[in-house]
Amino acid sequence: MLTFTYGSLIVRLIKDFEKTEEINEQLDRMGYNIGVRIIDDFLAKSGNYNCQSFKDTIDVISKTAFKMYLGINCDALVYSDKEFGLIFSDNPLNDYVELPERYNSLWYSNIVCGIIRGALESINIKVECKYNKDVLKGHETNEIRVKLVEIIEEKFIDEEA
Amino acid sequence: MLTFTYGSLIVRLIKDFEKTEEINEQLDRMGYNIGVRIIDDFLAKSGNYNCQSFKDTIDVISKTAFKMYLGINCDALVYSDKEFGLIFSDNPLNDYVELPERYNSLWYSNIVCGIIRGALESINIKVECKYNKDVLKGHETNEIRVKLVEIIEEKFIDEEA
Repeated sequence: MLTFTYGSLIVRLIKDFEKTEEINEQLDRMGYNIGVRIIDDFLAKSGNYNCQSFKDTIDVISKTAFKMYLGINCDALVYSDKEFGLIFSDNPLNDYVELPERYNSLWYSNIVCGIIRGALESINIKVECKYNKDVLKGHETNEIRVKLVEIIEEKFIDEEA
Repeated sequence: MLTFTYGSLIVRLIKDFEKTEEINEQLDRMGYNIGVRIIDDFLAKSGNYNCQSFKDTIDVISKTAFKMYLGINCDALVYSDKEFGLIFSDNPLNDYVELPERYNSLWYSNIVCGIIRGALESINIKVECKYNKDVLKGHETNEIRVKLVEIIEEKFIDEEA
């Protein structure tokens, strides 16, 4: 059902936007809006995590969140302590999909990048998140790159000031 | 994830269409397109059914298909041998949703009606399918009415004619 619903969303976006680049952007934005809402659902269902490092956060995403929301296994690839790859071979959003030639710049499941970005920003972790590989494009696996931009410090406002 | 993806689709449609009636219609059409594709997936996963009557078909939808695609239990209410109600109290598409007053004519999960209509038409069963009750509108349960229009006879063309 998710597969088919997501497919309908893509068809709708293709009708609404001329440029593939705009569709990628829209998917990222939609994902962001989902991410800021999904984080509460995630923490409620999975409990709070004590993530000491960005690597710990990435592990929670790859081991728990991917399983919970997409039902798939995902591995984390370390590029540096601030940059990781989320590697997954299956992707339910891709099922039954073939990407026509003219959409070869479309990152079909780009909504996932937006979701990760939105969810992490909600817990004060600002990241860049980009699709890097997609089996729909002939790559051997799917990869989403997540790069830490900054940990946003909570600002406590002194009400008496 | 389905809940959130479906929510994004609704937001998109609200941006695209002025009238709520048009959104209901679009959801039904999108559902129809999903239905004609989902039927193969359904038969592949669940095996073929030997449905002797329309009631048998409704039972397969309520007992198997609702569980498989929405993860929920559904009961069939008999109005006549040609008209049934699909009754379900939970609906994952509705989770976290509150319907603002101005959308009180929106059948939020109307895509499901289209899916049932499209899937059944693909196996030569023409039905009317309409939302009748939705807990989002304050009804005590969700109900989709399915009414048999006709069983389409297969036309075999005699190639030698």
